[in-house]
Formats: sequence, structure tokens, C-alpha cells
Amino acid sequence: MKKVIITIGREFGSGGREIGLKLSEKLDIPFYDKELILHTAEKTNIEPSVVERYDEQHSFPAFSSSNVFDIYQMPMSDRIYIAQADVIRDIAKEGSCIIVGRCADFILDKDPDCFKVFITAPMKDKIERKRHILEGKTDREIEAHIAKIDKKRSKYYTYYTDRTWGKSTTYHLCVDSSVLGIDGTVDLIIHAVNMKR
Amino acid sequence: MKKVIITIGREFGSGGREIGLKLSEKLDIPFYDKELILHTAEKTNIEPSVVERYDEQHSFPAFSSSNVFDIYQMPMSDRIYIAQADVIRDIAKEGSCIIVGRCADFILDKDPDCFKVFITAPMKDKIERKRHILEGKTDREIEAHIAKIDKKRSKYYTYYTDRTWGKSTTYHLCVDSSVLGIDGTVDLIIHAVNMKR
Repeated sequence: MKKVIITIGREFGSGGREIGLKLSEKLDIPFYDKELILHTAEKTNIEPSVVERYDEQHSFPAFSSSNVFDIYQMPMSDRIYIAQADVIRDIAKEGSCIIVGRCADFILDKDPDCFKVFITAPMKDKIERKRHILEGKTDREIEAHIAKIDKKRSKYYTYYTDRTWGKSTTYHLCVDSSVLGIDGTVDLIIHAVNMKR
Repeated sequence: MKKVIITIGREFGSGGREIGLKLSEKLDIPFYDKELILHTAEKTNIEPSVVERYDEQHSFPAFSSSNVFDIYQMPMSDRIYIAQADVIRDIAKEGSCIIVGRCADFILDKDPDCFKVFITAPMKDKIERKRHILEGKTDREIEAHIAKIDKKRSKYYTYYTDRTWGKSTTYHLCVDSSVLGIDGTVDLIIHAVNMKR
């Protein structure tokens, strides 16, 4: 198979991670999601628990308005973003892979092998998918938790990319995973990757 | 083939109409785009040229804030929208079809046979596709024209649906037509329709 970097943006609870894992198995190529945290921790010598704390969220003061050019004086979230972007570029250089979240579609936007996917799902499906990690919570509470995480992801994405998270024009392919199911969505993405010009 | 209503939202110049026409040919099912104007004109006894003037754009005063319950006292754009929505529902009842634009995804949202697609493309591709109808114009002028039409479509869509035009969560499948080409995008949509649960 020709080289392909599949980046997967995803709503929380849409099944994006599961789709990425199945794509990785079916295409026999590496998968990176939380794995990026350890890689970034190694690169920066920052504790993995600290990298995880800032995973897919940013903190003020704002990166863009900063006049600080010394990376060690930057806010921690910006230091981590910059290091993680390097990790993502290194991984993409090595060969085909799947990368979930972390603005990978933006970081690799100029790479002709990059195929940018975004996964959505109706709220009722997302609630069902996340019920097990929020045991004892009402549907309304689970929905609020999902909305909160997606808001963080959206803010993080826009902060570093100046693009709109989840807007169709940001990606090559957006799929509602409830329509074809997880396996059907995996098949559709493989079909698209094979047809990619 | 099982019944399927494919609604196609599309950026101006993305090739959405061409994709719809090819889907119609390949699946051997009726295609509705500008055709809806004549159907709506017939239903309302309003001149086709007037229906066309309001096609995919709305006029003030706002529909939602209106206290007027007599349809003949409504703004012309709202009268046309309501009649066109009836036309779309009638067409969908008849059997499988392709419907381009005109909030059809929203109007048929509760129909389990409805498959909601949105087509995008990079600006340079959209400019190339529309160059022939804007002969003698610079790329910047063509881009401005494209942006103006998409702004009208977006406002029209949001006005009648209270949803975001072009946002991935609004649709089942969004595709950048430049990645797979027109024929590749048609094939991908057919693949998705066949796998639809």
C-alpha cells in the first residue's frame, strides 16, 4: 500500500479512537493517540503526568500574543504543543500511521500523504458509548461532560490552528459513525484512502 | 436497491451538482436541483422567475418573529420555502431520489431513508470550476463571487433550520471533492449508501 497518514479528529464519544485502532489493525500501520503523551514527555523531559494534564487543552497567557521567544519561558501548554508537533512530524516521516486528535491534521496539512478525517455521532450514541466511564450519572450529566470535553478540544484546536474544529472544510472526510457503524466507517475510510489521488 | 434519499448540500463550485447528477445516473433515480423551482412555481402559482429570485435566499422580515398566520401575508421567501418544503416531502415519498440544496437534509431529517451529504473543495478548485461562467474576471473576483453565494446559502440554511451549514455534525457524510475527484466521490457515496444500516 502507498504511504498514508490518517489523522482523526473526533467528537468525544463518537468512536473515533476505536475507528483509529481498527484502521491500524486492518491497514497494519502504527496507531498514536494517548501514546503521543509518552513520546512528548520523553522529548521534553517533562513528567508524563504533566503532559497529560495539558493534553488537548491550552492555558493562558495566549501563545499568539506572547513576545517571549525563549521556549523555557513559554506557558507549559505551548511548550508541550510545540514538542508534540515535532513528535507528530517525526512519526509521519517514518511511514504510514494513524494519529488521533492533537491538531495533527493541521500540523501535517502540507504533507501530500495526509488524509484528514473527522468523526461525529448523535448525542444519544455518544452518551451510550461513555456511560461506562460515568457510572451512576444521569444522561443529562453525561451529556454535559461530553459537551465540556468537546468544548476544550474545540478551543485547543482553534487556539493553535486558527481553524474551526468539526467544520467540514477543515477535513477531507467527515463521517457520522452511527450511520455505517464502527466497522462500516472503518471500511469507508479504507475505501477513500485507496481511491485517494 | 433499497429506498434512499440522498440530500446534497454543497459549497458553490465544489462540484456538488455534478456529483448529484452522476449519482442519479449511476443509481438510476431522479435528480432535483433547479427542477425544484418549477415544481414549487406550479404548486404556488407564483411565476417561476419569482421563485428563482428567492431560490436559496431569504428576505426580511424574519419568519421566526412573524405573528402572521395567513400564508398569503407572509414574506414571499417564506411562502416559497414552505411550498418548496412540501414539494420536497412529496418527492421523497415517491421513492429514491437525489435532492440538491434547499434545506432538504433538514426537511427530511426524520426520514430513515435520508442520507445527508455535504460537498466541499479547496478555493483554487472552486475558482477553476466557476471560471467559465465568470469570463474575464480575476481569481480574486471569482473568489469573492463564490464567497458571496456561499454566504447567501449559509444564511438561508441557518434562517430556516437553526443549524450550521457546512458543519460536520449537520450531515452524515462530508467530502472534499478534490481528494477523490468527482467520480471517486460518487463511488464513495454509493459505497456509503450501500453500507448504510
